[in-house]
Amino acid sequence: MNTPLSHANSRVKEARKLSRRSVRTERRLFLADGPKAVEGALTVPDCVVEVFATVTAAEQYADLLDAAPQVWLVEDRAMELLSDSVTPAGVVAVCRFLDVTLDEVLATSPQLVTVCADVRDPGNAGTVIRTSDAAGAGAVVLAGHSVDPYNPKTVRASVGSLFHLPVILADDPAAAVQALQAAGLTVLAADGAGEVDLFDAELAPATAWLFGNEAWGLPDELAALADHRVSIPIHGCAESLNLATAAAICLYASARAHR
Amino acid sequence: MNTPLSHANSRVKEARKLSRRSVRTERRLFLADGPKAVEGALTVPDCVVEVFATVTAAEQYADLLDAAPQVWLVEDRAMELLSDSVTPAGVVAVCRFLDVTLDEVLATSPQLVTVCADVRDPGNAGTVIRTSDAAGAGAVVLAGHSVDPYNPKTVRASVGSLFHLPVILADDPAAAVQALQAAGLTVLAADGAGEVDLFDAELAPATAWLFGNEAWGLPDELAALADHRVSIPIHGCAESLNLATAAAICLYASARAHR
Repeated sequence: MNTPLSHANSRVKEARKLSRRSVRTERRLFLADGPKAVEGALTVPDCVVEVFATVTAAEQYADLLDAAPQVWLVEDRAMELLSDSVTPAGVVAVCRFLDVTLDEVLATSPQLVTVCADVRDPGNAGTVIRTSDAAGAGAVVLAGHSVDPYNPKTVRASVGSLFHLPVILADDPAAAVQALQAAGLTVLAADGAGEVDLFDAELAPATAWLFGNEAWGLPDELAALADHRVSIPIHGCAESLNLATAAAICLYASARAHR
Repeated sequence: MNTPLSHANSRVKEARKLSRRSVRTERRLFLADGPKAVEGALTVPDCVVEVFATVTAAEQYADLLDAAPQVWLVEDRAMELLSDSVTPAGVVAVCRFLDVTLDEVLATSPQLVTVCADVRDPGNAGTVIRTSDAAGAGAVVLAGHSVDPYNPKTVRASVGSLFHLPVILADDPAAAVQALQAAGLTVLAADGAGEVDLFDAELAPATAWLFGNEAWGLPDELAALADHRVSIPIHGCAESLNLATAAAICLYASARAHR
């Protein structure tokens, strides 16, 4: 093992730059923070470039780090620079981007796909990826002006599912909807004003769920492209549900119908 | 209308103290921040003591404030002290505590009740209150060492539902479970290791859902008191779901069965 690298070490400083989206996009690299994320990254062939670990964490997670191609010991202060957490767990991996194309995913005939248009909160995006994985979805499409899936908060909130579920970046949400329909999936837009009640919806066919932005929902013209607009029945004085909650309810309604 | 009060005004300073739990508990008062929360509070008879508003907000929300018993104009800097938001909307109400007893709620024969044991994150608690309301629950019980429902973050995340749905504070989760059972409700513990699959669970009877802490779930001895322990089927590599997501899935499974 190397002498622990300081916060001023050039390797540490280069890795730290990956906290910026522009640098991530240019290098197609991102940071996976914490043992859970590093473990997930190590399950993906050729994903991990290198791992930084404090001396304490390198002992604690020795088995995990055995599988890493390259491990650098770092000082605590260097770890604080690399980690997005208030209390860093002590291991951070530099990972290669994982996103695939929609065509690649459609070739696998997924029965359930999540499409987020303009999801902006990193934590929400990560939670939707985690929930999609749990519900048995085959992919998540982040469309339009959505948050970067490689944002450290998104990676953390996905709790490893980012490394398991194919994630697709799609600039044009309308084109993504049309490609999913052309592949035989029924596209259902989650829409508070939708004409179909979730509990009455026909969920047995292969389905892509389309979710809108946290604050303003789906643009009308995008919702209109879906095969149906589906509303979750709302009681009480609640006017709506938050994005991650609504997505969980819709995706698990599909999971039930698919069983 | 009064001359806008400054941040040094004693009324403003007294209200600001309600950001501390100890002061809230002693005075049985809390702050509702933003037009949505203030609107919810004003629907509850005798809930609102007074409202603070910036000059701009008092114009913008004039109709809303007409219903308030007492409105104080404040300077922007005073509003920054009263509001928990990074960008205050400009209206904050001082409200009386709303919690009721479990006996009062059980007298209304609720068909769906949410029980959280040791929920610690204020945002999660608020989201669970909002989702419970949306799913048609008759009450939320915050049991054990749960977060204060009058925490500003909880109030905000409940998006008005705190003012609509009865909230019960119960020191002893086991006693709450037993009281719910004695009133004829089936208590279902949401438990990743549960013996009943959610999609097979008998959800038609009046049901209380029991959820545990975000990190460590339900203590075994509490889960054992429930009539059944129910697991949400998890696919992919996700090992679990977050609390708010899991609660949404369980509560909406009940809402479907009750329809």
